[in-house]
Amino acid sequence: MATSNPDVPRNTIHLELGARSYDIHIGRGLLKEVGVELTRLQCAGKVGVVTDRNLAAYYLKPVTRVLKAAGYQVVPIVLPPGERTKTLRSIGTVMDALVNARFERSSTLLALGGGVIGDITGFAAAIYQRGIPFVQVPTSLVAQVDSSVGGKTGVDHPKGKNLIGAFNQPRAVLIDPATLRTLPDREWIAGLAEVIKYGVIEDEAFFEYLEQHIAPILDLSDVPVTHIVKRSCEIKAQVVSEDEREADRRRILNFGHTIGHALESLGGYRGLIHGEAVAVGMVYEADLARHLGYCDQNVVTRVRALIAAAGLPVRLPPNVPFHALWDAMQQDKKVSAGTVYCVVPERIGSVRIVPLEKAQTRAWYETVRVGDTGSRQRIPRKKQPR
Amino acid sequence: MATSNPDVPRNTIHLELGARSYDIHIGRGLLKEVGVELTRLQCAGKVGVVTDRNLAAYYLKPVTRVLKAAGYQVVPIVLPPGERTKTLRSIGTVMDALVNARFERSSTLLALGGGVIGDITGFAAAIYQRGIPFVQVPTSLVAQVDSSVGGKTGVDHPKGKNLIGAFNQPRAVLIDPATLRTLPDREWIAGLAEVIKYGVIEDEAFFEYLEQHIAPILDLSDVPVTHIVKRSCEIKAQVVSEDEREADRRRILNFGHTIGHALESLGGYRGLIHGEAVAVGMVYEADLARHLGYCDQNVVTRVRALIAAAGLPVRLPPNVPFHALWDAMQQDKKVSAGTVYCVVPERIGSVRIVPLEKAQTRAWYETVRVGDTGSRQRIPRKKQPR
Repeated sequence: MATSNPDVPRNTIHLELGARSYDIHIGRGLLKEVGVELTRLQCAGKVGVVTDRNLAAYYLKPVTRVLKAAGYQVVPIVLPPGERTKTLRSIGTVMDALVNARFERSSTLLALGGGVIGDITGFAAAIYQRGIPFVQVPTSLVAQVDSSVGGKTGVDHPKGKNLIGAFNQPRAVLIDPATLRTLPDREWIAGLAEVIKYGVIEDEAFFEYLEQHIAPILDLSDVPVTHIVKRSCEIKAQVVSEDEREADRRRILNFGHTIGHALESLGGYRGLIHGEAVAVGMVYEADLARHLGYCDQNVVTRVRALIAAAGLPVRLPPNVPFHALWDAMQQDKKVSAGTVYCVVPERIGSVRIVPLEKAQTRAWYETVRVGDTGSRQRIPRKKQPR
Repeated sequence: MATSNPDVPRNTIHLELGARSYDIHIGRGLLKEVGVELTRLQCAGKVGVVTDRNLAAYYLKPVTRVLKAAGYQVVPIVLPPGERTKTLRSIGTVMDALVNARFERSSTLLALGGGVIGDITGFAAAIYQRGIPFVQVPTSLVAQVDSSVGGKTGVDHPKGKNLIGAFNQPRAVLIDPATLRTLPDREWIAGLAEVIKYGVIEDEAFFEYLEQHIAPILDLSDVPVTHIVKRSCEIKAQVVSEDEREADRRRILNFGHTIGHALESLGGYRGLIHGEAVAVGMVYEADLARHLGYCDQNVVTRVRALIAAAGLPVRLPPNVPFHALWDAMQQDKKVSAGTVYCVVPERIGSVRIVPLEKAQTRAWYETVRVGDTGSRQRIPRKKQPR
């Protein structure tokens, strides 16, 4: 049986949730340790490796090799890449694969991929035979700092994101920041939106760190990248441990997502990718907060500047009439008794949750549209030497 | 707002599961109290009434009326009747209905029907927006004494029953035994298999009561029918409260189901209905127990006699070769590390769980097939005056 490699330095964050507690391990080279980690977690028997076609080309062979070396029978389940895969139909595809490979209650699923793969895999693990264990191995920045941690799993409905799913905590999260180097620039940069979000909602010092280190971060330098992944996971783990099922406190993680999800939904998930939509959402939710008197212009300016510096979009797509936006916002899971709630910053590092009135929101939106150029900002594609 | 009717006498059984505890109410006329009960449970807003076309003809109007009288906005979701509806595709149908009606996290689902409707509704409630409340209003005997209590929800896969699902406890179970009078005889009688099961696994006195009162029970007399529903719910609630997630003790409820599920699976869910398959399963699992030395012939004789007296089938369908049966048993969720486990009686009122060896089971099966007439017993269709 393989043993863990002392040459792989790691940071470990514990997410405390009673019987559902688990560790998040972060370390370059950790992908080679997946077999050892599953053994340590006492996973037994079959392992279903769920991934997409793009990632399979990079990682399926080496991950399969280390799993087999640790004694596992590996069943690869390869899905098409992209958000459009996040459907109930894909869940059916995974169920078919598990039934055909005779997976039992003690078999394990391993999510090897970005947020889409993690969300599908976690949900499939929740409902196959009413629940089997799963482990997250996130390979995108969004997945590493957000979606792999906290147990929210699920798929989209044509009329709204993540409307179908389950709370299902993984047995562990294994993060290898080296995988970020194989991401397309657009995807990697999109993940920075969630990183910036943690600064805004919870930690002004971290926000300042991002302002000061955005250049080396965009160069994918080891130390700052590992730091931002670690700090993001710490904040997420803390918030989730305080409110696993999003009764209250966890809702602060939705900053940027009320408008962001609406934009994704309006685009049929084909325009902005998730992180980009959240980036735009954060800028406009901050501006809405200013309009409603919750914060001053300086907050909006800093949020917009950092998001722009990260190479993320800061403008709404053109031609989104208010009624369409409002309608899409209504479809969000955060709606309660017909009221749309929104996370608004009071200052960098502190937010609150407020109900939105339609009339007020429309009045704000009219001021926004006047100032709009009407053309969607192109997303800068940085080509850094790597 | 409506208040509860003192003319509806009721038995209440508490199922203790910490934060997920709930009450099971049993009373003739309780269907008229559904609105009051939802109000008492502090359900708010929209109520999705999931039912099938057959039941909708009887109950949808009166239930809608009492819900509206209690102030609820009612959204009917009517599915085709029968086990073949229990698919992931039907879950998609329910999701579409909930999204289109803009159901929120605080909206409620009400399962108005038999086991199929209860299983679909509970699973849909588990995964819509990662979980909304639901209430069981079981109208078949199987649902009243078994499937509505205990939180097992889910749908079938073409290769096996209940392979996709969730543990999801309802907020309450509201049982009106008067609904049994509208059931087809075959369905109502099938439910007696689960009732008999409770006697075998846990309560010899209850088994004797069934032996002595089978005639008035088959006549649907009020007092014995309410008694058997109540006693069955009590036993189920006790077992579930001791082991919600079927780690150990709850598995005794699977008596008759190892062979029963295999028979259903082999028939593509079209031959025997669930209770009938369990009836046959109990007879043969008792005989297997005798063959393996766990109990004496008297247990087999009494189990078979009571099942036959209830008008349930006691023989295997013809032409089931051993390898097909064994293969179907392997697909069961109770399989662990490739081993098939089976609940075997030691005496009436006491069972244990044992692993089955293939060779032993084949040897037993050969003795069984020799004695088989080769023709499937016809299910008697009693036509009692009602």
